[in-house]
Amino acid sequence: MSNQMTTDIFASNDIAGFIEHSVEVMAVMEKIKIKISEIYEKYGFQPFATRLVEDADVLSQKGIDSKELFSLNFLSRGTEYIPGEDRRILALRFDLTVPLARYIGQHSNVMKFPFKRYQIQKVYRAEHAKVATGRYNEFYQSDIDVIGQGSIDLTHDSEFPAIICDIFQNIFNLERFVIRISNRKFLEGLFREYGVNDVTLIKQCIKIIDDIEKVSEQETIDRLHSVGLDMEKGRELLDFFREISSMNPMKTIPYLRGKFSNSLILQGIDELETVFEGIGMNGVSTSHFKFDPSIARGLDYYTGTVYETLLLDYPELGSVCSGGRYEDLVGTLARNKNIKYPGVGISIGLSRLVPTLIMKGHLSCDDYKTTSIMVSCQDKKFINKYIALGSMLRRNGHNVEIFQQRNKKLAYQLEYAEKKGIRYVLIANSYEFDEGKINVRNMITKETTSIALSELLTYFASMN
Amino acid sequence: MSNQMTTDIFASNDIAGFIEHSVEVMAVMEKIKIKISEIYEKYGFQPFATRLVEDADVLSQKGIDSKELFSLNFLSRGTEYIPGEDRRILALRFDLTVPLARYIGQHSNVMKFPFKRYQIQKVYRAEHAKVATGRYNEFYQSDIDVIGQGSIDLTHDSEFPAIICDIFQNIFNLERFVIRISNRKFLEGLFREYGVNDVTLIKQCIKIIDDIEKVSEQETIDRLHSVGLDMEKGRELLDFFREISSMNPMKTIPYLRGKFSNSLILQGIDELETVFEGIGMNGVSTSHFKFDPSIARGLDYYTGTVYETLLLDYPELGSVCSGGRYEDLVGTLARNKNIKYPGVGISIGLSRLVPTLIMKGHLSCDDYKTTSIMVSCQDKKFINKYIALGSMLRRNGHNVEIFQQRNKKLAYQLEYAEKKGIRYVLIANSYEFDEGKINVRNMITKETTSIALSELLTYFASMN
Repeated sequence: MSNQMTTDIFASNDIAGFIEHSVEVMAVMEKIKIKISEIYEKYGFQPFATRLVEDADVLSQKGIDSKELFSLNFLSRGTEYIPGEDRRILALRFDLTVPLARYIGQHSNVMKFPFKRYQIQKVYRAEHAKVATGRYNEFYQSDIDVIGQGSIDLTHDSEFPAIICDIFQNIFNLERFVIRISNRKFLEGLFREYGVNDVTLIKQCIKIIDDIEKVSEQETIDRLHSVGLDMEKGRELLDFFREISSMNPMKTIPYLRGKFSNSLILQGIDELETVFEGIGMNGVSTSHFKFDPSIARGLDYYTGTVYETLLLDYPELGSVCSGGRYEDLVGTLARNKNIKYPGVGISIGLSRLVPTLIMKGHLSCDDYKTTSIMVSCQDKKFINKYIALGSMLRRNGHNVEIFQQRNKKLAYQLEYAEKKGIRYVLIANSYEFDEGKINVRNMITKETTSIALSELLTYFASMN
Repeated sequence: MSNQMTTDIFASNDIAGFIEHSVEVMAVMEKIKIKISEIYEKYGFQPFATRLVEDADVLSQKGIDSKELFSLNFLSRGTEYIPGEDRRILALRFDLTVPLARYIGQHSNVMKFPFKRYQIQKVYRAEHAKVATGRYNEFYQSDIDVIGQGSIDLTHDSEFPAIICDIFQNIFNLERFVIRISNRKFLEGLFREYGVNDVTLIKQCIKIIDDIEKVSEQETIDRLHSVGLDMEKGRELLDFFREISSMNPMKTIPYLRGKFSNSLILQGIDELETVFEGIGMNGVSTSHFKFDPSIARGLDYYTGTVYETLLLDYPELGSVCSGGRYEDLVGTLARNKNIKYPGVGISIGLSRLVPTLIMKGHLSCDDYKTTSIMVSCQDKKFINKYIALGSMLRRNGHNVEIFQQRNKKLAYQLEYAEKKGIRYVLIANSYEFDEGKINVRNMITKETTSIALSELLTYFASMN
């Protein structure tokens, strides 16, 4: 109950779009980042972090509307902060992919490929914040990518669904989620099959498909019509999407092979087959992934596999983990422009997801409390004894707070311990010290037990 | 050797002042942050993180020169980003103390005090970067503070030296460091004793003392003379500083009590006595702390205990961990302006310290590698077997990379594993799979052992 109360997003006196949570939720977020890192590391991804700013030119050329970029200025002069002699304007990173690309472009000569990195940092967008719908100016992205030099084998694409499952099941305590997978070659081939052959029109079709869940079915059909697809064919396409996404992913491959002869479609099907087979080998249940041809991803640079992840009970969150495969990450930023750096990766949007999971009861703030024992202060004249007791417990591996404020009633100290999620409060005054004993209050059962000081470590060992 | 090479700070094509390191050093930094957090938690501090930006007005009123502040602007319009209707200009945080104060000012009604938090985030200064001397525009601070509502007991000041020792000895592998401690009341009393009574002049004296190591002794004497202290008294003062800081800290207290009668000095001595006694109780050896009256700290807001930490072998780094006690953190930012929020805290400057410790051999990048086993790819047709093997090892707690690039020679794969600090490479082809065996190459001893697949887990268990 109390957890639910603390999950409110602070509004008073706040800067909209730069959200901050209660200290309890903050603690969960900081700890979740570490737990996710551990799973990334289990799969061979290594820690990585980049600076806050990039050349504004680099960001603008990477496909974001420059209206969405924050620049870094001198407060006192009101002018852009420009380092060095080269008149570069700096802007804040809007994602974690461009900084990775820029870093590889600079340092590929001292790196070994494939390069598998994880990166959990905040990103910044200068759009109008809508806190209610989760559109923030500052938010966490939690990214993993594997980047090859020249090429990156297709089986890498199969590992990401296993990682998503590991995180969603073991950290987020979620079972009802599905990773929707498609392939850009398949989708593009499909539009060609349906008579759309112009590259620009195909791009428009992909964007329309990417928005499929934001508008009505009729609206999607109308939009596809406006870029050259017959109304009838549009309806047929949506029916086809529905049919495929309701099937077991492993059964879709032979079914589709029999249906199409278009070479781009068949290439997409071949890729999907390899990926699906690998996903199975990685131990992912077919209840957690499916082939959904209506997954397109808005960004231009995807060229193969694309992923979105849907929480079945919270569809209003949209895709909580998305990504895909791209032919060349580094592009014009490379030292040697003849080498391509293809890759595949996913990103989890933690800033919306974690508070929702707390509110819905999947994550409990209590599980993320960091102090387990508090030595209370019954009489400040014994402070040195309290400190010695706390130090001894710390040396034996416990996280211990020594309450050190004089003249605070025990009731206040217990309230304090409760708020902080502390499990045991030690209570001792002259009587206990004389007797070589200590009272241990279990904050969950509310029971207090008198224990010989010499038995204290054994007692805590038995409680864990 | 190779570690030393990788510690170079990248310069090429970089933005001066926003430094980035090699991926090996990055990994150490990310992991060190977690290890430090664990020590903070051992002492009852809880995780805390704030947004990137604050109201520019709030930052300016908190004592920083507004020339050192970055503001957040719209790149496309060239104007400040101003959220909401209230025309507030946003600036990037320059430390972690003001954001803490602002947060407490907003949310004290739902918080319990004392509030012990740790916060490890980057801060931003718009000064001219001097990378060679470690003056950056973006750098990590690692802060802990304990904040009281109304009051904060003096014994809290004793805990910080124990935490510094814990981190410096157990994480940084340093023994030759000393925490220099003084007290602002003592220092102010001393200037009054020496005839400086004007508050503004005393502040100037404190700033001169804070700069004592940046200039010659004669220069300090001249500066003190310029604000009203006789040359003779100035020399006497510096001699006195030297005398005290060479003494065992526990012996300084009775010695100083006999020497002064000024009440402010005596109050400072009383405070130092309590703090020193507590430091001993917290298990800190007298070789790691001393009373050094020449420690002043530049900031106005310190009112009692002040700390600086010197690495005896790297004095050029200056103080690597500093802090102190302040009477009121929140001040005008409080909801209820009648309540004071005094506190005490320290800050470690990780961005300069960690790369130096790597270069000097105290930290080894090898100790911070995250992948322990790699399944090599001898023949891509066995990829499903490699994936199954890797998955099995992951389920048993190992961090495993499955090399998935086809047609990469074993020599390349071993180089890759070595660069990534992977300890074991598994090598299997049709012969091994037929025989139910696997070759395990130990990357440190360079030995390869053939092991039955059924024995593999036992083998790794025995190696750890």
